[in-house]
Amino acid sequence: MCTAATYKTKDFYFGRTLDYEFSYGEEVVITPRNEPFPFRYMAEMPHHFAVIGMACVAQEYPLYYDAVNEKGLGMAGLNFVGNACYAASPAKGKDNIAVFEFIPWVLGQCATVKEAGALLAKANLVGLPFNEQMPAAQLHWLIADREGAITVESVREGLRIYENPVGVLTNNPPFEQQMFGLNNYMRLSPKTPENLFSSELPLSAYSRGMGGLGLPGDLSSQSRFVRAAFTRMNSVSGCTEKESVSQFFHILGSVEQQRGCCDVGDGKYEITLYTSCCNASKGIYYYTTYENRQITAVDMHHEALASTGLVRYPLIQEQQVKMQN
Amino acid sequence: MCTAATYKTKDFYFGRTLDYEFSYGEEVVITPRNEPFPFRYMAEMPHHFAVIGMACVAQEYPLYYDAVNEKGLGMAGLNFVGNACYAASPAKGKDNIAVFEFIPWVLGQCATVKEAGALLAKANLVGLPFNEQMPAAQLHWLIADREGAITVESVREGLRIYENPVGVLTNNPPFEQQMFGLNNYMRLSPKTPENLFSSELPLSAYSRGMGGLGLPGDLSSQSRFVRAAFTRMNSVSGCTEKESVSQFFHILGSVEQQRGCCDVGDGKYEITLYTSCCNASKGIYYYTTYENRQITAVDMHHEALASTGLVRYPLIQEQQVKMQN
Amino acid sequence: MCTAATYKTKDFYFGRTLDYEFSYGEEVVITPRNEPFPFRYMAEMPHHFAVIGMACVAQEYPLYYDAVNEKGLGMAGLNFVGNACYAASPAKGKDNIAVFEFIPWVLGQCATVKEAGALLAKANLVGLPFNEQMPAAQLHWLIADREGAITVESVREGLRIYENPVGVLTNNPPFEQQMFGLNNYMRLSPKTPENLFSSELPLSAYSRGMGGLGLPGDLSSQSRFVRAAFTRMNSVSGCTEKESVSQFFHILGSVEQQRGCCDVGDGKYEITLYTSCCNASKGIYYYTTYENRQITAVDMHHEALASTGLVRYPLIQEQQVKMQN
Amino acid sequence: MCTAATYKTKDFYFGRTLDYEFSYGEEVVITPRNEPFPFRYMAEMPHHFAVIGMACVAQEYPLYYDAVNEKGLGMAGLNFVGNACYAASPAKGKDNIAVFEFIPWVLGQCATVKEAGALLAKANLVGLPFNEQMPAAQLHWLIADREGAITVESVREGLRIYENPVGVLTNNPPFEQQMFGLNNYMRLSPKTPENLFSSELPLSAYSRGMGGLGLPGDLSSQSRFVRAAFTRMNSVSGCTEKESVSQFFHILGSVEQQRGCCDVGDGKYEITLYTSCCNASKGIYYYTTYENRQITAVDMHHEALASTGLVRYPLIQEQQVKMQN
Repeated sequence: MCTAATYKTKDFYFGRTLDYEFSYGEEVVITPRNEPFPFRYMAEMPHHFAVIGMACVAQEYPLYYDAVNEKGLGMAGLNFVGNACYAASPAKGKDNIAVFEFIPWVLGQCATVKEAGALLAKANLVGLPFNEQMPAAQLHWLIADREGAITVESVREGLRIYENPVGVLTNNPPFEQQMFGLNNYMRLSPKTPENLFSSELPLSAYSRGMGGLGLPGDLSSQSRFVRAAFTRMNSVSGCTEKESVSQFFHILGSVEQQRGCCDVGDGKYEITLYTSCCNASKGIYYYTTYENRQITAVDMHHEALASTGLVRYPLIQEQQVKMQN
Repeated sequence: MCTAATYKTKDFYFGRTLDYEFSYGEEVVITPRNEPFPFRYMAEMPHHFAVIGMACVAQEYPLYYDAVNEKGLGMAGLNFVGNACYAASPAKGKDNIAVFEFIPWVLGQCATVKEAGALLAKANLVGLPFNEQMPAAQLHWLIADREGAITVESVREGLRIYENPVGVLTNNPPFEQQMFGLNNYMRLSPKTPENLFSSELPLSAYSRGMGGLGLPGDLSSQSRFVRAAFTRMNSVSGCTEKESVSQFFHILGSVEQQRGCCDVGDGKYEITLYTSCCNASKGIYYYTTYENRQITAVDMHHEALASTGLVRYPLIQEQQVKMQN
Repeated sequence: MCTAATYKTKDFYFGRTLDYEFSYGEEVVITPRNEPFPFRYMAEMPHHFAVIGMACVAQEYPLYYDAVNEKGLGMAGLNFVGNACYAASPAKGKDNIAVFEFIPWVLGQCATVKEAGALLAKANLVGLPFNEQMPAAQLHWLIADREGAITVESVREGLRIYENPVGVLTNNPPFEQQMFGLNNYMRLSPKTPENLFSSELPLSAYSRGMGGLGLPGDLSSQSRFVRAAFTRMNSVSGCTEKESVSQFFHILGSVEQQRGCCDVGDGKYEITLYTSCCNASKGIYYYTTYENRQITAVDMHHEALASTGLVRYPLIQEQQVKMQN
Repeated sequence: MCTAATYKTKDFYFGRTLDYEFSYGEEVVITPRNEPFPFRYMAEMPHHFAVIGMACVAQEYPLYYDAVNEKGLGMAGLNFVGNACYAASPAKGKDNIAVFEFIPWVLGQCATVKEAGALLAKANLVGLPFNEQMPAAQLHWLIADREGAITVESVREGLRIYENPVGVLTNNPPFEQQMFGLNNYMRLSPKTPENLFSSELPLSAYSRGMGGLGLPGDLSSQSRFVRAAFTRMNSVSGCTEKESVSQFFHILGSVEQQRGCCDVGDGKYEITLYTSCCNASKGIYYYTTYENRQITAVDMHHEALASTGLVRYPLIQEQQVKMQN
């Protein structure tokens, strides 16, 4: 389905893969500070932090999948089918937010995870469809800044907020269970393993990389969580922009979905439609697509952020091969 | 260490990852037909098939890691430490080939795997160092054309040639054992699994991709073999050049080594230095490097193949980011 | 730690392993109908169903680990360290039960799981120690009759009751999570697996039993849950008493802990101190111990169940070898 | 199929499980010293070491599955289907032994593994059927004394003898490959695992026994090899006869096959028909059967070993339950 991750070197990076069998026509979309964010139950937000991210624009409204605001706060929604549970109607005394408004609601007004946490204490997520054709997506969210990350889940028991020390989110099962499951992998390491099996047997590492034996390699959401966590937590890179962005794409590359390996029936295959890496500190949104490996970038600060009107960049989907001769 | 793979759509593709903790300065190198291939024990080959591939050039000699000739035959050498065993000296009545000459020997004169197989029947691989600083590398080889693939291993018992139905090679253990090991994964599938555990329990697939549960996700050579085999055998793509090349890089992306995940000590990490995909039918060599995701290409037919003199293209190692605004 | 299981042929069987590094001196103990069950917060139960099970008797009180009553209802407490959470004090309007009284409370008055479920609706488990030397054990419980089974957990959120369709309980993590985890094993089967990996590869089953590949073999509680579930759900046996009891010990044998394989430090090892199998329909309690493989049995109906006074049978711990010559 | 193992405390123990879907009517059989061993190609052995073991007696000939001689040498044949390869006819200058004569040939005249190794240097195993109804079984062998163990395999390349440092043998694949496979489990341990995954994550062992996570739990021969090896190499027991024998049955209990878990089709299930443990130092053969958990024993020194005539003890197959009341 999807994997989101954070990464910090000199700057803070936030991104995700979006895995699905077809695209809804997403674009890189910048919402400038003075382009109002309307809300179904709450007052319109005429001025807000500028936001850049990947969105499907419907009726001039940016349905963000993942985005970052100019303060360096990032937020991504990931599929959470079967576990997401929203209020059927608005609740009195609460901030009632339709699911599709959740990213604008948070990124429009919060500069940090801490502020987002405070805001969420009053939130009631309502399962209102955007329109008749678009039912409320079943999602959970990763919200992160350079200081830390939280996971937000709206489940039967209500809105749940979890510290997310691993900076990774995938899909099912719920986050708490995913984190617990990591205990089963605590012995895995990037280093050559020691022989703990028996001191009387001449066991040895016949290959490099055997310290990771036991890491799951399939595309299910639980396995992607473990693999992305292992890769991210053990990641080593320089801290320049190029080195950081490069390494971030390698981290998410560890959970990329190749066409053919996840057959969803009817001749359709779930693939990694796009991978994003946003320098949240600088507002530069980098992405690759399944068919275009070259990193393409949009810099929010190259646009007039004090203006109105969505700024939209269609994805460059065609492979950009550089001929050397 | 490394993973090699083949892929066939309309054309035939052959490539590999090279995983190591530092580079020897490899380049894309074309050897035209009339640039002689010298041999230590055999007569010089003044004319031969033109060859394109990745090589480290030492004393004007192309030490190929992987290459393809103009007839569409590909060959790659992969680390086989502890198992490779070469003759200490030339043998009478045999074609005595130094290990570092093996790729030129085969690609210079064989148009197909079948011809290569016949040639190898007379071969004796000698563990002669290229020079005092460069001992003979411990390798085994994948040789493939659009009709099929073989693995060649020089071991204690002699030279062994195996049919390679999976079109993948990694490192240890020996190929026959790797192939046998695949039996343990026969139940894995890109499709949603059925409940075979118990008809009385309400088990269900809570995530897409669960048919692959059990696929190993670590970077050891045996795990990379299984993962690359699963990805390649279940791969689905269009058959245009762009689609084929794109998919090939996705296949090898499944076994990419991220910096930090394979710690070889002394603060060094094995990473995927480069990934190659050669359209063997057309002689176009595509590659990416760890720091440069964009696909770069060299087309052998853009050079004067009837001439002499190595044609060398240093790798473009710097990330080529395309700014959209 | 422990594994409990149920089994049904003509009669209903209920039993468990008790895994620990030392014994508290448990015995097979029958509490006849008229031996009063005292309670710290509730009125004494002067008459009740007769109960047979394994207990440590302290100050003439049977601290049951697992037991069955004459109506065929079974109940076992299993370690649940770190997750069990009891009330610090009695609650008004509730049936306040000290943890150590829980088995007598339920088995003394409930004939079925349904009745137990109704009774539990009013229960408040209090973490009162039995005495100063014996703090309240952190436990969760399996309650079962021939119609079905439930798991009872007293956690931070309160008392939780779950249908238990698999008839197995081990320890951590909580039952709901263990059940969910079974989804990851839905493809496992006692039958020879099919090749779903690739129709182009000649993969085959080189051994019997390969349909179960992926089943965990270690002694952690999650792995024992999966293994016992697989063995129990696929178990095949005749339905005579001997065949049923034999098969039950084989089911629990699949999760037996061998001395040396679970090192708890200080030269101590957790082992399966005893394994029990109670014919709940007939009130016959069978057991083996780590050092005595022969099945020993105590039949409650061989005692005067209408009387008072505990009937106690110390375990036969010494290996009973039968010499044939 | 089967698992054989050795164990050494004060005495030396040798035993095995025999896993199959039906029994051939095996018995504990003692061949006294003067009961001649006939051979098809070699001279009869009129006097030899006395032998005790499990055998199917056909036409007064003891077809031993596993046995021990009075000198403390043990030998067991285990299924090796698809890999065993015998000579079609006797070879000149060799000791030509029919497969079914192999155990008498070795145990009749060798006192140690060293002597057996020397004897085998001249052996040629011929695939002669015992009679028309009984084709030569495809087997490989474990031969062991208190000093060490070897594995003997007759394969396409000839007779192969391997040091067996683990003292365990199962079935396919060949022994060398099984031993190599153990490298993949070198990190497993009976101790609580350390967190090597990431020092920044609060991972912890939520259960005892987690050091063994990754140990395979299914019944395939490769998984049984790993599990029996782990259990045997980490086994801890006292060194009295009772403690040693008890622990030995626990070691083999880790690979017991429960009815239902290995479905071989047609409503048949492979189960552990019997488990044996022979005190090779003292000549006492202990066994249990699937339906009889009590240990039964036959002591060779209770018989007249200097005499002739097979001494046969049918297995006690019925469960011996000891009623305590």
